Amino acid sequence: MLSVDGVWSALSTVRSRQPLVHNITNYVVMNNTANALLAVGASPAMVHAVEEVEEFVRISQALVVNIGTLSPAWVESMVRAGDTAKVHGIPWVLDPVGVGATRLRSAAAADLIRRGPAVIRGNASEIRTLAGLVDSAGKGVDSAHGSEAAVDAARALARETGAAVAVTGVVDYVTDGERVAAIANGHRLMACVTGMGCTATALVGAFAAVERDFLAAAASALAVLGVAGEVAAGRAQGPGSFQMHLLDALYGLDRETLVARARLS
Amino acid sequence: MLSVDGVWSALSTVRSRQPLVHNITNYVVMNNTANALLAVGASPAMVHAVEEVEEFVRISQALVVNIGTLSPAWVESMVRAGDTAKVHGIPWVLDPVGVGATRLRSAAAADLIRRGPAVIRGNASEIRTLAGLVDSAGKGVDSAHGSEAAVDAARALARETGAAVAVTGVVDYVTDGERVAAIANGHRLMACVTGMGCTATALVGAFAAVERDFLAAAASALAVLGVAGEVAAGRAQGPGSFQMHLLDALYGLDRETLVARARLS
Amino acid sequence: MLSVDGVWSALSTVRSRQPLVHNITNYVVMNNTANALLAVGASPAMVHAVEEVEEFVRISQALVVNIGTLSPAWVESMVRAGDTAKVHGIPWVLDPVGVGATRLRSAAAADLIRRGPAVIRGNASEIRTLAGLVDSAGKGVDSAHGSEAAVDAARALARETGAAVAVTGVVDYVTDGERVAAIANGHRLMACVTGMGCTATALVGAFAAVERDFLAAAASALAVLGVAGEVAAGRAQGPGSFQMHLLDALYGLDRETLVARARLS
Repeated sequence: MLSVDGVWSALSTVRSRQPLVHNITNYVVMNNTANALLAVGASPAMVHAVEEVEEFVRISQALVVNIGTLSPAWVESMVRAGDTAKVHGIPWVLDPVGVGATRLRSAAAADLIRRGPAVIRGNASEIRTLAGLVDSAGKGVDSAHGSEAAVDAARALARETGAAVAVTGVVDYVTDGERVAAIANGHRLMACVTGMGCTATALVGAFAAVERDFLAAAASALAVLGVAGEVAAGRAQGPGSFQMHLLDALYGLDRETLVARARLS
Repeated sequence: MLSVDGVWSALSTVRSRQPLVHNITNYVVMNNTANALLAVGASPAMVHAVEEVEEFVRISQALVVNIGTLSPAWVESMVRAGDTAKVHGIPWVLDPVGVGATRLRSAAAADLIRRGPAVIRGNASEIRTLAGLVDSAGKGVDSAHGSEAAVDAARALARETGAAVAVTGVVDYVTDGERVAAIANGHRLMACVTGMGCTATALVGAFAAVERDFLAAAASALAVLGVAGEVAAGRAQGPGSFQMHLLDALYGLDRETLVARARLS
Repeated sequence: MLSVDGVWSALSTVRSRQPLVHNITNYVVMNNTANALLAVGASPAMVHAVEEVEEFVRISQALVVNIGTLSPAWVESMVRAGDTAKVHGIPWVLDPVGVGATRLRSAAAADLIRRGPAVIRGNASEIRTLAGLVDSAGKGVDSAHGSEAAVDAARALARETGAAVAVTGVVDYVTDGERVAAIANGHRLMACVTGMGCTATALVGAFAAVERDFLAAAASALAVLGVAGEVAAGRAQGPGSFQMHLLDALYGLDRETLVARARLS
């Protein structure tokens, strides 16, 4: 369903339009995700204060909300930013990091999901928790399930919320409740670097800024990240050099490499 | 006006004195700027709580205040730290990230500027906004203007505040309201890495700790960063490897390379 | 007292069990320490809100508390997390960054130490301050003393608190008040990268999750980091490339390299 031409076109549009992507994200990954956004050609900003998020969302082309390092004050900002984005037709993406691990996380995710995200991106445990299929106490922020185990949950969640739902893992799946796209790219080293899921979510934000078929936007971002991850892994000696090569690979990704490597269905 | 001997001398002094540089900066760049400060030989500390900033400023040799990820509680700490630095004759440097984008940012920058920074470092949009030349809504945290377009604004701002004002871009300019130094170093990859402007500001803090002609301090820091950026770009495959090589180049920068590359006027 | 076989066995156990390590740590190093934990095989999570730390500690195998970027709200979370860990028999590790530099830091460290950490890890200045041997105003967050100067202080602190106490420096020492282990590994480039002490503390957390002789756990973590640091320094051109190679070296560390390089006594 997803064509490599569509992925390349979306990446080219991100590079030419340089969308301003407003992130309210966790402390751990702010630097990586800003660099990943710059590497694909987007213009990242991290702005979190309740006193300014509404103003800032309005000048942005997309919003990314990630609940990795949460506090009630930040949840309030996330909710207001999501509401503002919705009202102004600015697509926003939710990353429900560690949902189910604590009541604060579950309450925040439930509250945010009602604000109409365009895309929800999580690992299998998170998406299953969100869909109410499991009452996970879980394994912290890393997934205990394979992504394929969450496709039904993702489909149900997409139908319920109207969002495109992406479950990332060895194979990534994106569904709008009807269609399901699968991306079989990436490399096991990606699980050895912190914030790779958060990076995926940030890139989905950049692509949603330029492509209003949000399933296509999310799948394109995941394909770009997965292919860049394979290129980087081919050059890396371990997770440290992988992280460096990943930014270089995102920055330098060309059509030929994308066509040769993308495994879409 | 600025000599390469003066730049080398300033760098050598930073390396030998290892000034303690107190940073109240944004979450995105704390790690990079700490590493850049260590790479030039300074001793960085990140301390933000209102309960301790005044004590901490007093044991520091310079203070860096950066409003990238702002909240009212942090503004209060920044204001108190700036006041304390001023009273104790400790030079402090202001980076007005994204000023003009929101009311919170503009109010914070206006409040801080009254606390007598020794140096203000921004991109062209930020410096023009500060100087009241434009009522920018702007482009988030990245600049929409070339640096040369802000030299008059910088000069006016320097006269009004008594600070040395640095506008960074393809060419960097520093002025104290009378003199204008220009540094034509750097590389376009620097715009593809997050927090390069914040790194410039942090290094200005380290140099201001050892050189009380603040125009010379700021210009020296920018020359060192620009030359190191060129060296790093010559070794890099993209923004990921650039960032790594930049720290190595700052750490290893020798007189010969500085003399060969610095383009000062 | 510490055998290289014991170190290898502890590392192998971390790799196979992948303990969930809950970190309440400073903004500067969250990304590095998460990556270092992943590189040795642990599963890191950064969770700080007072509303969720107690729940999160209970699903973790170890807790790391680091006071690098402090505020009273975070101290409250740290105290509750420490208490919860103690009650549930989950080992927790304290890093008293910059203790003595401000009253907030000293009060926080004194408060936390009463919560029964399994291990305390600091530089010589911090451990001496904690032990009440000096009333340090100090040198910010970097140590002004050699590690050997703090061994007596470490021993006294260990006796007083019941914790294993690690003093890191050119030689690292760990004591439980009776035994003293020494690790003579590492490289001077480690002092040119921010958060290397914090990384040491985080790794001690991972090892304490799988080894209840906390002196052995701490010494093993420091030996692994020191040997990986030597391997990385052999490949590095400066602090930027060092940081990258360090993660690769932690990830790829094999028995042969550990046996050849570890200098334990």
